[in-house]
Parts: sequence; structure tokens; C-alpha cells
Amino acid sequence: MCMLTDSISLLENEHIEDLGEGVGVVVSKQHTFGTDAMLLADFANPKFSDNACDFGTGCGIIPFLWLRDGKCKSISAVEIQENACNQVERSIIINKTEKIKIYNRDLKDIGDFAAGSFDVVTMNPPYKIENGGIKNEDESSTIARHETFCNMEDIAKSASRLLRFGGKFCICHRPERVFDAMTAMRNNGIEPKRLRFVSKKGDTQPWLVLIEGKRGAKNGLKVEAPLVAYNNDGSLSEEMLSITEKYRKEN
Amino acid sequence: MCMLTDSISLLENEHIEDLGEGVGVVVSKQHTFGTDAMLLADFANPKFSDNACDFGTGCGIIPFLWLRDGKCKSISAVEIQENACNQVERSIIINKTEKIKIYNRDLKDIGDFAAGSFDVVTMNPPYKIENGGIKNEDESSTIARHETFCNMEDIAKSASRLLRFGGKFCICHRPERVFDAMTAMRNNGIEPKRLRFVSKKGDTQPWLVLIEGKRGAKNGLKVEAPLVAYNNDGSLSEEMLSITEKYRKEN
Repeated sequence: MCMLTDSISLLENEHIEDLGEGVGVVVSKQHTFGTDAMLLADFANPKFSDNACDFGTGCGIIPFLWLRDGKCKSISAVEIQENACNQVERSIIINKTEKIKIYNRDLKDIGDFAAGSFDVVTMNPPYKIENGGIKNEDESSTIARHETFCNMEDIAKSASRLLRFGGKFCICHRPERVFDAMTAMRNNGIEPKRLRFVSKKGDTQPWLVLIEGKRGAKNGLKVEAPLVAYNNDGSLSEEMLSITEKYRKEN
Repeated sequence: MCMLTDSISLLENEHIEDLGEGVGVVVSKQHTFGTDAMLLADFANPKFSDNACDFGTGCGIIPFLWLRDGKCKSISAVEIQENACNQVERSIIINKTEKIKIYNRDLKDIGDFAAGSFDVVTMNPPYKIENGGIKNEDESSTIARHETFCNMEDIAKSASRLLRFGGKFCICHRPERVFDAMTAMRNNGIEPKRLRFVSKKGDTQPWLVLIEGKRGAKNGLKVEAPLVAYNNDGSLSEEMLSITEKYRKEN
């Protein structure tokens, strides 16, 4: 595995996380990734011909997972935090890709993106409502975890503007926010079509929900079988393994 | 087990279904009950001191399960179909109870019930939207299964009128209707607080969702661990057994 780390420089708290298949992302203490983003990238499952946009991309994990898997024609990554964008820029360099473009801006300020030009929009949003919990002392983490700069209404509004008719909007969220997230979608012309809860075991409370909405679609929701992360013996389930497989192989 | 069947008469297609603990309900081909109603009665779990109301009570299964378990101070059962009410009247006689009262009327027409006078309202509603599927040839079953006479908005509106501030409204529904049901609740001042999906196995698609809303409550939803009906070996799960135990013992 050869990473072109000589073409970029890394700060002290940064390293390159290998996603498998020769694709890597620059991660830092502030901008790294977890299982939720990997599950969302898999759930959204864009086609090879899709133009996709990832809001609040952070270190760019979702675009780079899709890059690794040969998905999408183009991927626009939007991120308000400059230090995260700087990481993504360097990840673009080390992966020598022209498929991913990074835009350092507020997702509410995307007036120059052509309306209706995307097939898929994703976001792993801040889970906590503004002032709804103890804020992380680190400002970058606070922005990523709390609805400081955007809430579900803002996100759904911008997604709706970018999506073509029938295009899909996929997010993950805490289960307790599922109703608010679906309401924000419907308020903005995106109809919730598919829900999938994620839990450790088949009989435990879910920790995450994956939601797919379609712009302009008719009412009609499917609640899928949950994604169960662990087998009864405590090992990772076959499905969870298959989603994290390429990444795990390298780490 | 002595049932006072000598005090009432049964039609040819009717019989008394024993719920256990000496409580029985008159069921017929048109108005009988299934697992869903038993799960809803258990999920709603009224207190001993509660005034409860069950909309679209059918054969009265939910009130009579609560009667069996010593729940509620009073139970008002509302049912639009006269033949179902007639069954409930006879069940009241055989169980010698004054706790349950049956009202033969449209749940939209409850102007004489005192507003805000109930602690709990339940409904096992028609699952199919009007004209949304093949209608059952039998008219009674059609009314019970399709939103012929009432939809979720009507139901939530009437429930909201009857409930005291903080009183709870519990329904079961098909998972694909969960968003519409929650939206109808919120539109009528009942905030969804608790969701529980019911599935055969921990990793299969749910067949039912149980929803609890609270009148006047703040936003904040809990998605509970699913109710899993079967063990891996195909036997009923401990929880499902405990809910249906008293009924099963007698049948």
C-alpha cells in the first residue's frame, strides 16, 4: 500500500486513514469519522452515473468511500469549517482524483449550484439541537455535533433545491429525531420513503436511523428490517462486516 | 371455568372467547380480535385509577383485557357498527361489569363526552386508506379495515378533545403509516413520545408499530427496543408469551 504522503504535509494531530483499495483520507482529532458515516454512505448507495452532493462532509469520509467503490460521476462536498476543507483538499491530492470537489461554505449558501442538478444529496447532520446538550469544549466538534449553523429545516431546504425531481436525500440521525427529520423533509417537498433503524442486537434499542426521502414523490413509506450490528456471540454481523470490510482489512 | 352464557343468547356465527381469569368476550366472524389488539392493550398500560376510552372497539377486546387485568376506573368503548356494539353489550352482561360502557356512535360525534375528561384514549384503527386496497366483500370487515368512516386526522382530533392535558393516546398501525399517524397526532396537539416496532425476528421487517402520544407534551421521541415475537427456534418469545399468556392458558 503506497500512499502519496510526500505530496502533502500533515499537522501533528493528523494522519491518513486507509479506507482500503488504495484510498485514504486525512483525519484529525477534530475531523474524523465513525461507523454512522460508513452506514450512511452504504445506505445512500449512489449509482455510477449519479451527481452527488454531501453536505457537512467533515473529513470527506462519504465522498472518499464512494470514490473507493467507484460510485458517482461527480461528488460535490460542502463544508463550513475551513480546517476540515483543508483536510479534504489534501485528501483529493493524495488520491489524485478529479471526481471530488470541495466547497468551503455554509450549506444554506449554495445559490451558485444549479438547482435540480443532483441525483443524490447526503448529510450526516449534527445530532443535537442547538443548546440542547452540553456543548463540546472544542469549537470544531461543537459545530459538527450541534445545530449551531444549520438545523434539519435548513438542510432539507437546501437539499430540495439541489435535487432533481425524483432525486434522493439520505441522512442518518438519532432515532429520537426521526419524526422531526421526516417532517423537515416533507415541509420541503422531499417525501420520506425508506427508514432503517440500526441497533446492536435485534432486540435492543436502535442507536441510529437511516432515512431516504425523494423529491416530489408520493406519500408511501417503507420501514425496512433493521441493520443489526452484532451477532449473539458478540461478533460483528455479516452485514456490518460487509459494510466495513474494505476499511477494516487495511486497519 | 363457568361462563354465564345462560344469561345471553348467541347467534350462529358467534361464540365466547375466553380471555382468562374468568373474563370472556363475544366474538363473531365480523367482529373478532387478533394479536395487534392484545399488543396495543399491553402497550397502553392504563393505571388502575385511569378513565380510558377505546375508539372503534369492535368486539371490545381492549376494554375486556383491561377489565381482566383490573386496569382502569372506567372504560368508555366507542363503536360505529351496531352489530359489534350488540356483542359488547352481551359481553358486559356475561362479565357482570359496570366498568365498561358501550357507545354506538361515530367517533367524530362525541360532543356529549366531557372534553379533557380522559387519561388514556386508544384505537386499533383501520390500517388501509380509503379505496387504498381491495375492499373486503363483507361490509363490516370493510369498515373495520379501511378508513371508510374516519381517518387518522379524525381519530387524533377526537382523541385530543377527550384527553386531559398530559393524557396519552395510544394506537397501533402498519409501519408504513407511522409518519402519517405521528403527523396527525402533532397536527392535533398530541406529541408523539414513544414508538415501538413489532417484528417476527430481530432482523426482519416490522409488521406493526405501537405509538404513544401525549396531549400538550413537548417534542421528544423515544424509539424503544422492538418487540420481537419469536425466538430463533420458532417458539414465541418470552415477552410475547407474557402478553398473551392469560388468554392462551384458556384456549
